[in-house]
Amino acid sequence: MTLAGKHPELVVWSSEPLNVETPLEMLARSHVTATELFYVRNHGPVPAVDPAAYRLVVDGMVGTPLALSLEELRGRFETTTVEATLGCAGNRRAELATLRPIEGEIPWGAGAIGTARWTGVRLRDVLRAAEVAPDAGHVAFTGLDASAAAEGAVPFGGSIPLPKALGGDVLLAWAMNGEPLPAAHGFPLRVVVPGYIGARSVKWLAAVTVQADASSNYFQARAYRLFPPHRAVPSDRAADGLELGELVLSSALCRLTEGGSGARVVAEGYAVAGGERTVERVEISPDGGATWTAASLAERPRPGVWRLWRAELELGPGAGEVAVRAWDSAGETQPTDDAGVWNPKGYMNDAWHRVPVARQTV
Amino acid sequence: MTLAGKHPELVVWSSEPLNVETPLEMLARSHVTATELFYVRNHGPVPAVDPAAYRLVVDGMVGTPLALSLEELRGRFETTTVEATLGCAGNRRAELATLRPIEGEIPWGAGAIGTARWTGVRLRDVLRAAEVAPDAGHVAFTGLDASAAAEGAVPFGGSIPLPKALGGDVLLAWAMNGEPLPAAHGFPLRVVVPGYIGARSVKWLAAVTVQADASSNYFQARAYRLFPPHRAVPSDRAADGLELGELVLSSALCRLTEGGSGARVVAEGYAVAGGERTVERVEISPDGGATWTAASLAERPRPGVWRLWRAELELGPGAGEVAVRAWDSAGETQPTDDAGVWNPKGYMNDAWHRVPVARQTV
Repeated sequence: MTLAGKHPELVVWSSEPLNVETPLEMLARSHVTATELFYVRNHGPVPAVDPAAYRLVVDGMVGTPLALSLEELRGRFETTTVEATLGCAGNRRAELATLRPIEGEIPWGAGAIGTARWTGVRLRDVLRAAEVAPDAGHVAFTGLDASAAAEGAVPFGGSIPLPKALGGDVLLAWAMNGEPLPAAHGFPLRVVVPGYIGARSVKWLAAVTVQADASSNYFQARAYRLFPPHRAVPSDRAADGLELGELVLSSALCRLTEGGSGARVVAEGYAVAGGERTVERVEISPDGGATWTAASLAERPRPGVWRLWRAELELGPGAGEVAVRAWDSAGETQPTDDAGVWNPKGYMNDAWHRVPVARQTV
Repeated sequence: MTLAGKHPELVVWSSEPLNVETPLEMLARSHVTATELFYVRNHGPVPAVDPAAYRLVVDGMVGTPLALSLEELRGRFETTTVEATLGCAGNRRAELATLRPIEGEIPWGAGAIGTARWTGVRLRDVLRAAEVAPDAGHVAFTGLDASAAAEGAVPFGGSIPLPKALGGDVLLAWAMNGEPLPAAHGFPLRVVVPGYIGARSVKWLAAVTVQADASSNYFQARAYRLFPPHRAVPSDRAADGLELGELVLSSALCRLTEGGSGARVVAEGYAVAGGERTVERVEISPDGGATWTAASLAERPRPGVWRLWRAELELGPGAGEVAVRAWDSAGETQPTDDAGVWNPKGYMNDAWHRVPVARQTV
């Protein structure tokens, strides 16, 4: 796999599997992230899939198992386009790692996130055609890739609760920002689960399996869990880790630009909420949290979609710390500091985003 | 209104309107809070309602408006019992007020919360009978009380989004813990909205109104809002305050008892999550957050229902601070400190619960 189609300024954490991050300065530029700028989090080599031979299997607790070609998917179900933000559960891990080391994980900055327009069919419609059994509880996805897990190479996979799968916002998508999915993003078909960690939006989708329980796939049952901070990751005690699902409320300062009125600077960034919640307010502090002002928010609040924000700030001379925090529609806000959310695998960092700034005295 | 039916050790913040809180030491005793211990948050005098003349009006954007007697409610719809935790949006305000004063609000401790078994009919079933219009968005509740608001005396009211109202867990309840609702708790009929702030569980229910927009009632459109910390409450700028809805993730240490093994003490308390989320983990720190251990949790995780927890702790000699925090099914945890969540009306305090302890050296 090469970096074909990706912007040369992306941060490359590894090329096989491909793991690249968007520089924050580029992320704040537009509500929809260009595909060439969009982060990639892969767990194995990108599989080469022949679209003509491709079949999506829908099986498990269904009355009518399906094996659908791409043409059948397009022909039988209504095509729709939704905007959705995908974010890696490890986004902002680097901040946690400065506090206590996090072994064996990619030290993502705040750029393992992006928003795209996804086109495909609703998972709900496909599940209805397959006739879901009344006692089903979860919908599992399995990829065509062979990902390197503790047990060797396994397909990547994960599941979401059935009510989310039936909610109408979960897509089986073949296009990203109006173009066919690039290979690195899941060609020919991927899941898009708005409001959930990116790991549930399984790429190179092989199967949708309706089942009673949550996925037993390594990447849900063992990895991608929130382990207690008070001990190391116990590989034989996966049950001690919380199973991740919805994204957490988070925000980031993406760039500071001179050029506000007078001695002011313009701050820009993003904020994103989890589940069905929406970002309702973003606040920025020029002094590490002592005082706060409201940022202005672009676009209306929608579940599963970030909001870019902008604020003018008066920064004093010398060094200081700019902090950002968001509030969501549940009235919740972000934890104050990294120490409060540190966990052994460095997931779900939702602490205030704190950025040291040095400013020349005028 | 007297305190008839209430335990004499409750904390009485005001007797007219009646506002009483459960001492924490009594709250941790059982999963279901006895009615005589259950907190009361009223906004006006308790109305005297003749149950024979009582009619529940269901109106607004419905095909078939209803006016139902209590007998009709019981006869036409299935009776069900659900356990649900109700908590005041102002629970734990006292902790915030120690940081910066909060004017004109009751300084609730952590005892404005409780769990009861509620019996009644599902709001969903009643709404189906009334035939909700397809473009409806919210379901508003209006009480029979006359509450003292900025504009004078108005009925208490509020609304919830239609999907929540149709979710099957929202009740129109006439019984609490197996007995008819006491007058102070909403006799003859009240709403119970699990996972939401107590203010949405409107008592002495007069009307259920299906409408396009959220409630314009004073207690939702003006009060019970989360104002930005950086300015005083602007009474003419209600839109600057976030409308509250779901409860926040919170937890409390209710009592510390000598008597663990050796020099250990037993800590007990509650934790509660918002919306459809569940409490998945509770951690306790004997040293103000430097180190944490997992508490054991009673009962299984359920949305809208608290979980009591228990842990044994080694407390060093001298003074210190015990801290408690919870993690929910969305992978989110509580903010570190009160400064991070302070707001002018003192709502939704979900910071770590910190309790100073003094211990004699042995």
